[in-house]
Amino acid sequence: MAETPPPPDVVRSAYAQLAVTDLDAARWFWVEMLGFHVQCQTKDSLYLRGTDELTHHSLVLRRGDIAALDHIAYRVRTPQDVDRAETYFRALGCQARRIPGGRGTRGIGDAVRVVDPLGFPVEFFYEIEHAERLIQRYDLRRGAEIARLDHFNICTPDIPAAYTYYKGLGFGCSETIEGDEHELYAAWMYRKQTVHDVAFTGGAGPRLHHLGLATHESHQVLRTADLFGAVHAEHHIERGPGRHGVSNAFYVYLRDPDGHRVEIYTSDYYTGDPDHETYRWNIHDDRRRDFWGNAVIESWYKDASPVLDLDGVPRPVTDTILDESADATRVGADGLG
Amino acid sequence: MAETPPPPDVVRSAYAQLAVTDLDAARWFWVEMLGFHVQCQTKDSLYLRGTDELTHHSLVLRRGDIAALDHIAYRVRTPQDVDRAETYFRALGCQARRIPGGRGTRGIGDAVRVVDPLGFPVEFFYEIEHAERLIQRYDLRRGAEIARLDHFNICTPDIPAAYTYYKGLGFGCSETIEGDEHELYAAWMYRKQTVHDVAFTGGAGPRLHHLGLATHESHQVLRTADLFGAVHAEHHIERGPGRHGVSNAFYVYLRDPDGHRVEIYTSDYYTGDPDHETYRWNIHDDRRRDFWGNAVIESWYKDASPVLDLDGVPRPVTDTILDESADATRVGADGLG
Amino acid sequence: MAETPPPPDVVRSAYAQLAVTDLDAARWFWVEMLGFHVQCQTKDSLYLRGTDELTHHSLVLRRGDIAALDHIAYRVRTPQDVDRAETYFRALGCQARRIPGGRGTRGIGDAVRVVDPLGFPVEFFYEIEHAERLIQRYDLRRGAEIARLDHFNICTPDIPAAYTYYKGLGFGCSETIEGDEHELYAAWMYRKQTVHDVAFTGGAGPRLHHLGLATHESHQVLRTADLFGAVHAEHHIERGPGRHGVSNAFYVYLRDPDGHRVEIYTSDYYTGDPDHETYRWNIHDDRRRDFWGNAVIESWYKDASPVLDLDGVPRPVTDTILDESADATRVGADGLG
Amino acid sequence: MAETPPPPDVVRSAYAQLAVTDLDAARWFWVEMLGFHVQCQTKDSLYLRGTDELTHHSLVLRRGDIAALDHIAYRVRTPQDVDRAETYFRALGCQARRIPGGRGTRGIGDAVRVVDPLGFPVEFFYEIEHAERLIQRYDLRRGAEIARLDHFNICTPDIPAAYTYYKGLGFGCSETIEGDEHELYAAWMYRKQTVHDVAFTGGAGPRLHHLGLATHESHQVLRTADLFGAVHAEHHIERGPGRHGVSNAFYVYLRDPDGHRVEIYTSDYYTGDPDHETYRWNIHDDRRRDFWGNAVIESWYKDASPVLDLDGVPRPVTDTILDESADATRVGADGLG
Repeated sequence: MAETPPPPDVVRSAYAQLAVTDLDAARWFWVEMLGFHVQCQTKDSLYLRGTDELTHHSLVLRRGDIAALDHIAYRVRTPQDVDRAETYFRALGCQARRIPGGRGTRGIGDAVRVVDPLGFPVEFFYEIEHAERLIQRYDLRRGAEIARLDHFNICTPDIPAAYTYYKGLGFGCSETIEGDEHELYAAWMYRKQTVHDVAFTGGAGPRLHHLGLATHESHQVLRTADLFGAVHAEHHIERGPGRHGVSNAFYVYLRDPDGHRVEIYTSDYYTGDPDHETYRWNIHDDRRRDFWGNAVIESWYKDASPVLDLDGVPRPVTDTILDESADATRVGADGLG
Repeated sequence: MAETPPPPDVVRSAYAQLAVTDLDAARWFWVEMLGFHVQCQTKDSLYLRGTDELTHHSLVLRRGDIAALDHIAYRVRTPQDVDRAETYFRALGCQARRIPGGRGTRGIGDAVRVVDPLGFPVEFFYEIEHAERLIQRYDLRRGAEIARLDHFNICTPDIPAAYTYYKGLGFGCSETIEGDEHELYAAWMYRKQTVHDVAFTGGAGPRLHHLGLATHESHQVLRTADLFGAVHAEHHIERGPGRHGVSNAFYVYLRDPDGHRVEIYTSDYYTGDPDHETYRWNIHDDRRRDFWGNAVIESWYKDASPVLDLDGVPRPVTDTILDESADATRVGADGLG
Repeated sequence: MAETPPPPDVVRSAYAQLAVTDLDAARWFWVEMLGFHVQCQTKDSLYLRGTDELTHHSLVLRRGDIAALDHIAYRVRTPQDVDRAETYFRALGCQARRIPGGRGTRGIGDAVRVVDPLGFPVEFFYEIEHAERLIQRYDLRRGAEIARLDHFNICTPDIPAAYTYYKGLGFGCSETIEGDEHELYAAWMYRKQTVHDVAFTGGAGPRLHHLGLATHESHQVLRTADLFGAVHAEHHIERGPGRHGVSNAFYVYLRDPDGHRVEIYTSDYYTGDPDHETYRWNIHDDRRRDFWGNAVIESWYKDASPVLDLDGVPRPVTDTILDESADATRVGADGLG
Repeated sequence: MAETPPPPDVVRSAYAQLAVTDLDAARWFWVEMLGFHVQCQTKDSLYLRGTDELTHHSLVLRRGDIAALDHIAYRVRTPQDVDRAETYFRALGCQARRIPGGRGTRGIGDAVRVVDPLGFPVEFFYEIEHAERLIQRYDLRRGAEIARLDHFNICTPDIPAAYTYYKGLGFGCSETIEGDEHELYAAWMYRKQTVHDVAFTGGAGPRLHHLGLATHESHQVLRTADLFGAVHAEHHIERGPGRHGVSNAFYVYLRDPDGHRVEIYTSDYYTGDPDHETYRWNIHDDRRRDFWGNAVIESWYKDASPVLDLDGVPRPVTDTILDESADATRVGADGLG
């Protein structure tokens, strides 16, 4: 029997590409209100980055007929890791497509796109254009003052399967939510030295729950909420501001004009030690969701963005558990009954 | 027919005296967690002030059999205004009792206590002991880092009557919530140059809705919530943190061990100009209650502290409108249907 | 012998009018960088206000041949106080000129301009146009996010004389710097319920030391400094950010393109009680100038803006002590040897 | 000729051990004022960590006859990297001493201590005791609210030699200060994904310039300075608060009772990408040292802590350039003339 080939060495969550139905409305939301820097724009798309980011983009907005996730993308350590990604996913029986530099997303070199075992469209690339340093361009900051993409949060019905898959990709696990018998309800997993690059919300999938964007200090999260109130667009605020028990992040969740969810957040902690231990929250500790005990709004559990396959067709959504033995996870997203 | 005598010249909301059933528990909440400075303590009471306050206390906690408000107190401009208060309230047909210095609340000189036309126990005094300046004693700050008492919020069934009474006492009105026909649902009224010294929440009364305490910056409000989460006492957090539309304050509401409600808040604006205009919120603008559009928890509208009469007996609570013509206010607290 | 007529009832420091030599450069500094809202502009002037201010302007920038102060202005409580001001200053032997509404500064009604006993051009007015409420227009905030004018700081050689004059005008005194024999080196005086509306810096006068502008929180002061660094205009930062011992304010001092000095500051405390006591700093406590013990840059003591007389002619500057008995004050500004 | 053996895989700057002459005074400074958590104490030493740290200590204070650095310590990725360190430094001709677990610093397993090519005492270890998670124990936070050790800053006369040595150890370089001909005046080098684990200040060495400690937000840096002012210990504040051009950190430098320097700082950026580019400051850009253009106090350039050899004897200090060709670096620390 053949051994599994080695996985690519993932550096970090790198960018997401979203299809939006109204590019002007999306620009208002992501650029004017959240403060993303427009690195480049075409008739049909915007390439955005946070002001701390030194690479071409961390978010691509593409005009599309339906609001959906085109793909999420991870940067890998070397050009050879792109090849490794192709071999690895083919060995897993996943669809994998090579995208030569210049043929895929602007600014990105040679890449591989796959439909991963959880059903998500994911790109792996090494090469990306560098971009002018804006870290100290305080004069360009506006809105939420987004510093950088931090993580992806994805909806999948089978949390243990998601955990196992990402463990195989070399991700560490910073925090979990677990039942009394250590049934796994949610997990936060990382490659870079923060709490997460990806996290899982139990529920019908594959769907994108949200993009997590980092800002520097808590007053910027408050400013974000205040800005939406100021222009009477407070309906874009879905949840928070609040403090997560998990990750200790101070957050606010917003919905963009297409309903894509984004978390603006700050505070986090270092996870880079080789023996970093997973912190396990019990499902009965209400502080896991909100450290201040505030209730979570129902839409936050229910709504999520559909994802497209490699040909741009929406992927079917299921709530079937992949691993039949994991009944415990049926309890639902983050333990909501 | 006799003219109404002139009202006392009120300077500001000065202190509240609360009866609490467990003084140790109250001390944990108000001193350890909120950071009030203990100016003086006796076997049965604590005299507390914020670190910006230069007078003896702004909160007195007294051990009592039931949790209730003993009285709220306003400071007046001169000793003669204490006499004026006595005359004024007697002319209004209110019970008024003279309390010589040393016979009433510690630190307070000659005072008059009345049951005001809204049914609340209220003290008027001029003389109060000065206290050591702690404004720059950063080393003494802890918890919520309370700077000073800011205002009283009282529940009363007849908002127009409350407005008229406080207008007569010389208060200005910074903001209101009004219906489409300008029916008055809520009002914020001031003597000092901030948004309010007193505000009214529609509902059965007389009851104390909350004490408003000022802290310096928004990170201190967040710290307050984090502290309660940290010691797994997050159930003391009732609402928020959030931004009020009214007053623009950033707030969190807490309940003390006896259920007394307190608002920790920051940000406010200057109201000292002679022609300062009332800002009128329409009842249909959801941002009035929370500028970010978050829902208000039901207990915040329903619960409040009973008040005692001048002999320490709980006063009966009613939701009868004093002014029969003001049906519109029956809609309820802050417009909740 | 005639009694002194009563002084006008001053409400607060209201606005300053500065002559600037390059209106475009001034606009960059005050509007783009500091974030003043442009209420109105003409070919030769800009009328600016902070986003918390509800009146027409708190700063007027007028194109002029030399950089100077046209006048500072105090708002008074009633229209009659304008008349009182005229009578009062004439009785003091000061030049006083009536400026009918529409003939003086735009937005201002009937006013009196005087050269006060300290040699400064000062306007007293009651009527001022109201302006749209921007308090919650977070979307309009930029730069230093100026909330409101807070105070004037003026250079005068005779601090005791300045103190006596402003006491006569009804100002309270929140803080002083005094020698071991209580010689007065500096004083902070107020009408509104903050630490000051006016303060005195010992030195040749009459000159304007700086305008004090309030912002809401300390992170906005830091942002101001960061913005100037970001556009490589850090030479506009003269002193700070730092914490004043006096007033406890967190500050940064900037110089505009003409050299006019401005203090952006936050934090302060309530001074509205009738028996508010003056806090006296000893000249030997280094924390009075900077609570963290940092040295004060020499230009901060030496430089200041000239002032114009009522006909727009620069007034002569002197360091002669008005009161010959007050030798102690010769030590210099704020006690600098 | 033998090849150089591979260097150990360094994870991060892990802890420093300082000799202090008065342990009670040191405790006041580091624990009461800065807010380090006391993990363990003995008669002669204190083991401290920041509240985000999950390992036994990041600072050890040992009672000693002279104030000095015992050693700095780097954590390595595996137990085998401890062996690699021994072999590597022996091959470099450096003194290297094996310290079995239990024989050296409490909480640390098997370690190697070396005198590195720059003359500094440095420990490499893998094993360290884990410690209770305090990340969300807001109730334990005090003073500067230190989150974690961030970096070491060392004085050495030969910056290019230091750069070359640390490059050989596998460190990346985030920022430099360079002359017009790219002569190297200073460098910031990292293993973890922040701006630095170690930085070099030109000057007589080996000496420890400072320990860099991270706190979460800028208001905590301000609080630190305010606390020292509040207890009239502002002479412990040496420089700042200010914004570094290099690293973009908001900082304050303090001196402990023995003169050891510590930087409390916040803000930083991600450096984990494999092709992260060095940002090069020109020596003539004044913003490199202070982004706001403020002057640097002379003691900050001149003073530093002596270091001890492996037997606890002070090492001689020299300003001799190791690499004779590097005359340019004679200009002095950070380019000061």
